[in-house]
Amino acid sequence: MAQHQFTVRIRYSECDPMGIAHHASYPVWFEMGRTELCRSAGVAYRDMEELGAFIAVARLEVRYVHPIRYDDEVEICTTLERATRVKAIHAYRVLRAGLVVTTASTTVACVGPDGRPREMPEPLRRAMGVSEA
Amino acid sequence: MAQHQFTVRIRYSECDPMGIAHHASYPVWFEMGRTELCRSAGVAYRDMEELGAFIAVARLEVRYVHPIRYDDEVEICTTLERATRVKAIHAYRVLRAGLVVTTASTTVACVGPDGRPREMPEPLRRAMGVSEA
Amino acid sequence: MAQHQFTVRIRYSECDPMGIAHHASYPVWFEMGRTELCRSAGVAYRDMEELGAFIAVARLEVRYVHPIRYDDEVEICTTLERATRVKAIHAYRVLRAGLVVTTASTTVACVGPDGRPREMPEPLRRAMGVSEA
Amino acid sequence: MAQHQFTVRIRYSECDPMGIAHHASYPVWFEMGRTELCRSAGVAYRDMEELGAFIAVARLEVRYVHPIRYDDEVEICTTLERATRVKAIHAYRVLRAGLVVTTASTTVACVGPDGRPREMPEPLRRAMGVSEA
Repeated sequence: MAQHQFTVRIRYSECDPMGIAHHASYPVWFEMGRTELCRSAGVAYRDMEELGAFIAVARLEVRYVHPIRYDDEVEICTTLERATRVKAIHAYRVLRAGLVVTTASTTVACVGPDGRPREMPEPLRRAMGVSEA
Repeated sequence: MAQHQFTVRIRYSECDPMGIAHHASYPVWFEMGRTELCRSAGVAYRDMEELGAFIAVARLEVRYVHPIRYDDEVEICTTLERATRVKAIHAYRVLRAGLVVTTASTTVACVGPDGRPREMPEPLRRAMGVSEA
Repeated sequence: MAQHQFTVRIRYSECDPMGIAHHASYPVWFEMGRTELCRSAGVAYRDMEELGAFIAVARLEVRYVHPIRYDDEVEICTTLERATRVKAIHAYRVLRAGLVVTTASTTVACVGPDGRPREMPEPLRRAMGVSEA
Repeated sequence: MAQHQFTVRIRYSECDPMGIAHHASYPVWFEMGRTELCRSAGVAYRDMEELGAFIAVARLEVRYVHPIRYDDEVEICTTLERATRVKAIHAYRVLRAGLVVTTASTTVACVGPDGRPREMPEPLRRAMGVSEA
């Protein structure tokens, strides 16, 4: 489950009067990256919510290096950097035509329906390679 | 509870590469209009959700007459047109400097946590002037 | 260029506290449908903007029949209903597992950089099957 | 122009299936904070765009400490931390009922219509207290 890559085409509604993707559009693609990375390891995040486990974003950092435009096709590369029983750190790169246009990082934490920290359900821990020791 | 009016300033992120408010931004302001119309009648919509009553949009119609731009201040006028124990029809007008730039209409229905139609809770019915006959 | 169909997976950020796709998320998919319908006829909408022709939405109507949820895969079917040299009417259906969950319609008009109506550029007219008579 | 504070009420569409404000909603409020901080110093950002000066976000960092919910009223506090002739660093705090729920920081850069770095127009530099030495 180390890494996942998918293509997203920039939507008109994701762009702003500068004609480029608005900076608040990017975290949405990173979230898609986390979901797809999980799925590629056999875990549907939606099922985790039904088990009462929610993934809350605790930290977000983005470096916008080059702008991207409406209708551009970009690659979203998501890497799991580190995971414990309650937290995970992911790194992201956005590439257009092989050029890195954006880098980012998030820390997510597992919380219960009450918003309090809890362990990730076993399938999610396993998907993230967290040892059971 | 017939009518409510509030001012919204167009956000940069609500605008698109044409430099005008994206057409998908408007329904968000209409939803705010419904919320504020309820509040002005003494009902917080948030409390209704805690009673297990959700307001689902069943129909949306918008006529975009004149564009509006980033940083424009516009008035959102919300009118309750008709209400029954389960449904309500609202009309909306967006005005800039006294000129109607957009008109719209929605039908909303009350549903339970399972998504099935249910009666609005009593405070909401009362706020909407639905007779108890 | 009569019709186009594509699949979209519902994003977490497109859903609201009811756990379903927010009603303002749908117009974004319809816009994608129009873009892809054009592309399938050999015209990139992005190129039209570079020719000074912008597509403004003048009317939007949506009927939300059944809710859709985070991570659902739905089909967006876009049909060009009618086109003149300046306007076009499209119809949309959203299907999940073969069931129509939403229907919609838009009227779009071609405008110049100044926001005033203008003829669609020739490639766009041709893509829409508007006769040159 | 050191600091600005305004109140925002969390919109339904800004919240996600967890019932809390989605993490991608926050940068939009920070952008509003920058705009209002400029305005309080006598500069409308919209006018800067008409002078061919655009403010591009180069870096974004957010720490989400406590969640906030639909219909919550929160304070957005924006502080200009440092400014040069081409860049500015802002810090943000989101408070609910006096409690800091989120902190953030951005770096923005002034670019021309071509996306290349340029000096901020004089009114903007003055508003940011950049010395003319």
